[in-house]
Amino acid sequence: MLPMPTEPKNDRFLRALRREPTDTTPVWIMRQAGRYLPEYRATRARAGSFMALAQNPELACEVTLQPLERFDLDAAILFSDILTIPDAMGLGLGFVAGEGPKFERPLRNAADIAALAVPDMEGELRYVMDAVRLIRRELAGRVPLIGFSGSPWTLACYMVQGEGSRDFARAKALAWNDPQAMHRLLDVLARAVAAYLSAQAAAGAQALMVFDTWGGLLSPPMFRELSLRYLAQVTERLKADPHAAELPLVLFSKGAGAHIEALADTGCAALGLDWTVDLGEARRRVGDRVALQGNLDPSVLHAAPDVIVREVDGAIEAFGNHSGHVFNLGHGITPDVDPEHVKVLVDAVHAAGRRMRTN
Amino acid sequence: MLPMPTEPKNDRFLRALRREPTDTTPVWIMRQAGRYLPEYRATRARAGSFMALAQNPELACEVTLQPLERFDLDAAILFSDILTIPDAMGLGLGFVAGEGPKFERPLRNAADIAALAVPDMEGELRYVMDAVRLIRRELAGRVPLIGFSGSPWTLACYMVQGEGSRDFARAKALAWNDPQAMHRLLDVLARAVAAYLSAQAAAGAQALMVFDTWGGLLSPPMFRELSLRYLAQVTERLKADPHAAELPLVLFSKGAGAHIEALADTGCAALGLDWTVDLGEARRRVGDRVALQGNLDPSVLHAAPDVIVREVDGAIEAFGNHSGHVFNLGHGITPDVDPEHVKVLVDAVHAAGRRMRTN
Repeated sequence: MLPMPTEPKNDRFLRALRREPTDTTPVWIMRQAGRYLPEYRATRARAGSFMALAQNPELACEVTLQPLERFDLDAAILFSDILTIPDAMGLGLGFVAGEGPKFERPLRNAADIAALAVPDMEGELRYVMDAVRLIRRELAGRVPLIGFSGSPWTLACYMVQGEGSRDFARAKALAWNDPQAMHRLLDVLARAVAAYLSAQAAAGAQALMVFDTWGGLLSPPMFRELSLRYLAQVTERLKADPHAAELPLVLFSKGAGAHIEALADTGCAALGLDWTVDLGEARRRVGDRVALQGNLDPSVLHAAPDVIVREVDGAIEAFGNHSGHVFNLGHGITPDVDPEHVKVLVDAVHAAGRRMRTN
Repeated sequence: MLPMPTEPKNDRFLRALRREPTDTTPVWIMRQAGRYLPEYRATRARAGSFMALAQNPELACEVTLQPLERFDLDAAILFSDILTIPDAMGLGLGFVAGEGPKFERPLRNAADIAALAVPDMEGELRYVMDAVRLIRRELAGRVPLIGFSGSPWTLACYMVQGEGSRDFARAKALAWNDPQAMHRLLDVLARAVAAYLSAQAAAGAQALMVFDTWGGLLSPPMFRELSLRYLAQVTERLKADPHAAELPLVLFSKGAGAHIEALADTGCAALGLDWTVDLGEARRRVGDRVALQGNLDPSVLHAAPDVIVREVDGAIEAFGNHSGHVFNLGHGITPDVDPEHVKVLVDAVHAAGRRMRTN
């Protein structure tokens, strides 16, 4: 076994998150290890189910590395699901074909919530840490490895609703009708998310990301109370954590473009942005407090190559010649994308990033 | 037959849209004639299908008036669907139980788009105008009647996608890959929407509203190019229209909180707001250019009555003691709401609006 290198060979991604100069703009793609790749579909078929794939460290490692073989990506992200924590808490995660995630035992009342505890990171969630350890070893320092978690609010949405939803009305109803129970749930989730990310850091993750997929469903006061507050708690806990304190943390709150100043004030290293925010305007609003990651509309990957290149150029220009930009889509890549278009995008980012720095 | 009164007895709603003083804050509710009402479900069952209900002027009138019998609402809105125009253009609208709207013949290519024409408002769409005439007569001036349409971009989304979607990827792909065809489509839709609203005005509607349900899916430049531009065209056409020029026009672009200044600049009378925007901040941003309509999170109706009253009070206070507020939800009411909660909300608006004006 080779000794684990302490610094990756390609450190563009980590440098950009620290807002240090880079030779070009680093790029990775949300859900880059996913269904748009035929090799992913083949591994997924061998595994039998999505959960069997996610819970098998060797197969999770295999699919994590697949996109790096095809594209000149500057980071790898652990292949896993945002709902591993509730599953480890006993809710029983499954995936219904064409319908997305579903819990066998969603939370029904305050007693269900009171019974929840932070799961054992090297117990029920050991398969995640094993995957992180294996991927880190197999990467051999090629690019940094990103660990991640769902946000407390986003996990709470699914745990109360039991499944995906347009409006997560059941979760919101709990927040209205038993705010104490909702805060108790968010509190245990904030502790679990911080412990989960800390364990991933200890296992070898080199950057951390929190997906607040449903923060944008909330009114401004509800966003501050139910989403932002617990994102800030996770950030604070990680800053005081021996494993995670030095790792850059990216907060991605989808649809929360109105709140990026407050998100930057949490003390995180970077913000993920969806495509409804102008990248240059976002940079002016948050100033030098954080790096920014994003934010091309994923639908651009359905466009012809020349349109993809034009849109990439536009985003790089909108951010301008400043440190602190990690290129990404504004949301996960969809299964119907042609992998050749991803190659066009990745190469266009590096070319435009170089041009920006030499002009 | 009684002569048609020219001014409604309760003109709070129209006065608020003109930013004139009112005795209290007017209120109506998006989808107020809908499935949460048992009497609606009874009429819907008699009609046989949603489309049979929408296309029968007597039944459409009946359900339009139902919520006025229960609640002290300050406006009625035509019972219809946003997709009547594409249906009249020949796409064949149907509703699949539990899945929403679906077109039999979605647009597949530029030739399909080139073949589209503005439908005859007293031909294919006569059933809508008959409903407007009948409702206006039956209202007998009790409250004003709102006519409405989907926005060009929102209609285009469904016409290209063929059905509802999370991301309307097919519609966006057309915009990327054949922008000329997309603009041709939006152009014929802008003309159709303006003609449709003009015909509703001629038939007796006293205010007009455009629902841009999917504007918020667009990046800032795409929003300006595909949504805003055609909302502005509709607004301009209506201002030059003999029937509609004097009627207040409300533009509601869901998820477009970042663009309210630009929307106000179209020259419309009012903006609809979803619940992700703070009402007081929105008022400061648009100043005295437009009235505002909105914007409580519809999930509040799942809360206990005291919470509903508290949230209504908060919204009225956020807007402040200014003219130009029409209270509404930030999106349509959902079928699982208890009608008693709607009564609590409506009465709370009027009480809080009166208090605000006397303090």
